[in-house]
Amino acid sequence: MRPDELDRTDVVGAIAAAAARVSNWGRWGADDVQGTLNFIDDAKIRQAAACVRTGRVISMSQPYDLNGPQSGWNKRTNPTHSMLYTDFEAEAGLQPFPHGFGGSDDVISMPLQCSTQWDGLGHIFDHGVAWNGRRASEVVTSYGDQVTGIQNQRDGIVSRGVLLDMGRHFGDEHGELPDGFAITVEHIDAAITIQGPTSVVGRGDIIVVRTGHYSRTRRDGWGEYAAGPAPGMSFTTVDWLHSTEVAAVATDTWGFEVRPNEFDDAFQPLHQVVIPHMGMFIGEMWDPDRLAEACAADGNYDFLLSAAPLPFTKAVGSPLNPLAMR
Amino acid sequence: MRPDELDRTDVVGAIAAAAARVSNWGRWGADDVQGTLNFIDDAKIRQAAACVRTGRVISMSQPYDLNGPQSGWNKRTNPTHSMLYTDFEAEAGLQPFPHGFGGSDDVISMPLQCSTQWDGLGHIFDHGVAWNGRRASEVVTSYGDQVTGIQNQRDGIVSRGVLLDMGRHFGDEHGELPDGFAITVEHIDAAITIQGPTSVVGRGDIIVVRTGHYSRTRRDGWGEYAAGPAPGMSFTTVDWLHSTEVAAVATDTWGFEVRPNEFDDAFQPLHQVVIPHMGMFIGEMWDPDRLAEACAADGNYDFLLSAAPLPFTKAVGSPLNPLAMR
Amino acid sequence: MRPDELDRTDVVGAIAAAAARVSNWGRWGADDVQGTLNFIDDAKIRQAAACVRTGRVISMSQPYDLNGPQSGWNKRTNPTHSMLYTDFEAEAGLQPFPHGFGGSDDVISMPLQCSTQWDGLGHIFDHGVAWNGRRASEVVTSYGDQVTGIQNQRDGIVSRGVLLDMGRHFGDEHGELPDGFAITVEHIDAAITIQGPTSVVGRGDIIVVRTGHYSRTRRDGWGEYAAGPAPGMSFTTVDWLHSTEVAAVATDTWGFEVRPNEFDDAFQPLHQVVIPHMGMFIGEMWDPDRLAEACAADGNYDFLLSAAPLPFTKAVGSPLNPLAMR
Amino acid sequence: MRPDELDRTDVVGAIAAAAARVSNWGRWGADDVQGTLNFIDDAKIRQAAACVRTGRVISMSQPYDLNGPQSGWNKRTNPTHSMLYTDFEAEAGLQPFPHGFGGSDDVISMPLQCSTQWDGLGHIFDHGVAWNGRRASEVVTSYGDQVTGIQNQRDGIVSRGVLLDMGRHFGDEHGELPDGFAITVEHIDAAITIQGPTSVVGRGDIIVVRTGHYSRTRRDGWGEYAAGPAPGMSFTTVDWLHSTEVAAVATDTWGFEVRPNEFDDAFQPLHQVVIPHMGMFIGEMWDPDRLAEACAADGNYDFLLSAAPLPFTKAVGSPLNPLAMR
Repeated sequence: MRPDELDRTDVVGAIAAAAARVSNWGRWGADDVQGTLNFIDDAKIRQAAACVRTGRVISMSQPYDLNGPQSGWNKRTNPTHSMLYTDFEAEAGLQPFPHGFGGSDDVISMPLQCSTQWDGLGHIFDHGVAWNGRRASEVVTSYGDQVTGIQNQRDGIVSRGVLLDMGRHFGDEHGELPDGFAITVEHIDAAITIQGPTSVVGRGDIIVVRTGHYSRTRRDGWGEYAAGPAPGMSFTTVDWLHSTEVAAVATDTWGFEVRPNEFDDAFQPLHQVVIPHMGMFIGEMWDPDRLAEACAADGNYDFLLSAAPLPFTKAVGSPLNPLAMR
Repeated sequence: MRPDELDRTDVVGAIAAAAARVSNWGRWGADDVQGTLNFIDDAKIRQAAACVRTGRVISMSQPYDLNGPQSGWNKRTNPTHSMLYTDFEAEAGLQPFPHGFGGSDDVISMPLQCSTQWDGLGHIFDHGVAWNGRRASEVVTSYGDQVTGIQNQRDGIVSRGVLLDMGRHFGDEHGELPDGFAITVEHIDAAITIQGPTSVVGRGDIIVVRTGHYSRTRRDGWGEYAAGPAPGMSFTTVDWLHSTEVAAVATDTWGFEVRPNEFDDAFQPLHQVVIPHMGMFIGEMWDPDRLAEACAADGNYDFLLSAAPLPFTKAVGSPLNPLAMR
Repeated sequence: MRPDELDRTDVVGAIAAAAARVSNWGRWGADDVQGTLNFIDDAKIRQAAACVRTGRVISMSQPYDLNGPQSGWNKRTNPTHSMLYTDFEAEAGLQPFPHGFGGSDDVISMPLQCSTQWDGLGHIFDHGVAWNGRRASEVVTSYGDQVTGIQNQRDGIVSRGVLLDMGRHFGDEHGELPDGFAITVEHIDAAITIQGPTSVVGRGDIIVVRTGHYSRTRRDGWGEYAAGPAPGMSFTTVDWLHSTEVAAVATDTWGFEVRPNEFDDAFQPLHQVVIPHMGMFIGEMWDPDRLAEACAADGNYDFLLSAAPLPFTKAVGSPLNPLAMR
Repeated sequence: MRPDELDRTDVVGAIAAAAARVSNWGRWGADDVQGTLNFIDDAKIRQAAACVRTGRVISMSQPYDLNGPQSGWNKRTNPTHSMLYTDFEAEAGLQPFPHGFGGSDDVISMPLQCSTQWDGLGHIFDHGVAWNGRRASEVVTSYGDQVTGIQNQRDGIVSRGVLLDMGRHFGDEHGELPDGFAITVEHIDAAITIQGPTSVVGRGDIIVVRTGHYSRTRRDGWGEYAAGPAPGMSFTTVDWLHSTEVAAVATDTWGFEVRPNEFDDAFQPLHQVVIPHMGMFIGEMWDPDRLAEACAADGNYDFLLSAAPLPFTKAVGSPLNPLAMR
């Protein structure tokens, strides 16, 4: 399906039809809490480790601080960091420590999805239904995610990562796609062809899609990076995401999908299929820019991706520092 | 030096003497912010990747939640997690989303060193002096760590990890060392001999020392896990830590060192040498128990350790989810 | 009704019967958000001002700090206070201020009902129904109290206050009632008689019931002050609370009601009537001890009570510093 | 002194000279923590109570929510409010409560001076010196204000309040002064004359100066309300503030003083005299608009001001809900 074949007036129908085609409910048992991460097996981890060719490690994390992208939309704010104490107190004799010992400590307060993050399986629902067909209200309450909390991904998320640098291949002179640019399967296929054999994507891989949107904010400021217009994945990629059996997808945008979305009066319809029906983890607000430089330099686009969430008990998402080891 | 050769009455002298022997000030230039992580080079990362033999990934993170070890000592509390909204709101039509889209979001507030963590280089000082000889007051203020903030470790911390299971080798029937047990160089050497060739430690490696203290809290409750008595590294290991050129050390205790400390009226004297003088990163409150089981089962004690901090701007420490890939 | 006439096995029936007797639904219109505060009129405020006889002002607030009563029960923790910066930074030239200007600032994180507080009208529900007969789910969501948020009490809560010192009259040598002591209408009537004419209670007054429970914690530590056994109001006082038309009630205990509650398998049944059915504000964890000393000294038990909540938008409760002006 | 007599180039000299003229150091003993609140005596409280003529109570608090004035300047953010749980959980059987009992609870995180507030005595320093001549570094550390913490004002702040409606008398058609308008003693005297005998100010009174700046933000948005240009008190009022022996001053602006300040390269010089040298409490970001309407309507400009801080232990300021009872 191509974007111009979408019926812009029937987002509900499109979601329902896609969900029927790509549902993974029950595929890994009624108790499953891992979703598409089940595609990652030990062989995949070994394959990923074999991608460590040069020994260079590159973070894909944005900084976590008050100068972040959030503007309060839907209660999301930027992190606030405070010191609990500093060495001033030690030097002034105000810490309970002997022999010239001094220390400092600090504290953070932050929405778990305010910057570089994983969407957990309890983050998005379709008509009140969560991943694997569970009632949303039986999964996520004010007491947190009772079933699919992010602590279930404590031993992950690790796999072979593949960078697809759509901004470089299809963007402007800065390597940036414009807002509203819908990345299609054709774009993905073309990118893989351009990038060569290390970009071939298969079962269990995690793809990192660089649009250049984050690069643009570094130059132009945040603007509407959070919740505003953006390049991103077309709704029509849903079948490709399913059939390739990738384990997860991450992008450098706030919301992974192209925005404005490709339907009238719509809000993130691809999420509504991918998370509750496919059980797929989505990474957002990653920073793949330095990795992209390195990949372009030597032509190797795959790497060992170490993308561990912090195991916050019953959380529906997590900040993380995704490392590409290559 | 053996523990019984320490002069218990002269902690200040012992610290000063050790600092003089093991100082790395200036070793990596006046601007250095990486300390002993400089020992990790690309070859080490490639060697670490070669330790991925089975493809299994094991987290060494404790859970992050309100049931954690902190009791308010020196302003450290446990994480508080709240939902910003849940699908109840979506189902009740109270979220601004169309077509059956529902979501949930959450927020955390936590001291950065309340659970599994890295001590950053701005965490501990000796008589008002920080890593590399800088004035502590010029490094860490209420505005955070102006020089050695943990964001500098954005691309790390990754290396070959080696588990030293002291609890198993020298502990009780549970594989746990008692409080006050000082781990010496002799213990370390013996453990390496017992564990075999995969435990040989060298330049750039990161050692994970399992005492069994965390295992005990799982059985008996937290008790005084935070800031109380514990097994841990003897002050006398300082020269070994220096001469081996390990990049970092992590343990399963609150404070890395044996407690009570080995001097009268002392508080964490080994920290006072290791962080400001050696520039070494210390991991605390890690959970190596499942990794220890796996290592004991197949006899391989080294692994690719992916231990990325979150790049909180100007922070003096960070929570993390340390992954052992083996 | 006396406590011994309660059917301990039928808490549901008792609540329903009481609710039928004392309901104020619709009494002040369908849009009402003030509940029993409607009993306070301008004349009452003037009467209250006339109670300022000596000009002494006495706070009834407990301290707000980390050493508070909370232990994490139902996600309630104690306040965490941090400095944002101090004059150390100014003196070190690290603040952006000229001419020797220095400052310090701080930040708090706290559950709104962690210490001295008002229960707002959106705090408690009966079988999913909130004050004035509204559906609880249409009133309070994750986005806060959409109807009866505490900001509606911005211009209050002020009235004539009357201290009823039950601990002094019916307690032990410390003036403290034991846990499980149920304060009945007979006790209240007797206390008023003992205390004299300044204790007569009528429409619009706010009563402050001192049990001595907080005094005890000062001596013995918090123990189970939060959510544990306590002296408090008997369920049987519900009709008296209604017929006297008092505007609000406050106590020095965690939960206002006697605990264990007077029914099998019950939890705060008086709340379940008083808040959603009567629309009454309940003050908890107040500290009336110094006020009690002053009242006993001169025999005047009424005062101008200034008990303003902070107008947190859409909050279901508020910390406050209740002042008795006498 | 008039504003045009200020030497704009010598702010340091002006501060030092003013401090010498108006210092209250030692006036109330070496241990004093109340500063100019000492001017309030029991007679003043009784006088204030006599100002309660109609029985109407009017709050001067701005709302506390995410839509507040802060923009992150010097680490100040707006309050973040979250629910800990709601009745959704009770209705879904997810709360540990029997018999249809349901509840909701919430939590706040906020800088203590993010909205309507009192500056405590530990908030501002002059060349490292705090109120009463103490070393700032011995008063306020990362562990809070060890001497003059706001909990010392637990029993206050209450007095006779007098509204001075400068916006109405000297402002535009909206009753608003323009940015940069310096309120002088002549303006104050004229306002008192215009307003009549209830506006006469004396020892122990608290004046509330309405500039109209907050009214403007309601119409035009926050703009630079926090830390930007504003009408406010001229530096030249310092002697009047001292000689009248008022207990405190509050305004409807972010920073009390006219901004830009009346010196080259200056930042809040009047604070630097008033807080550390006079020991005066300053209220900021109050909302006197409804009170101003009432005062203008009946010509009575004085009232019982109940302006209690929350007794946050060791805090250097506090949010509050200032009530005018008139």
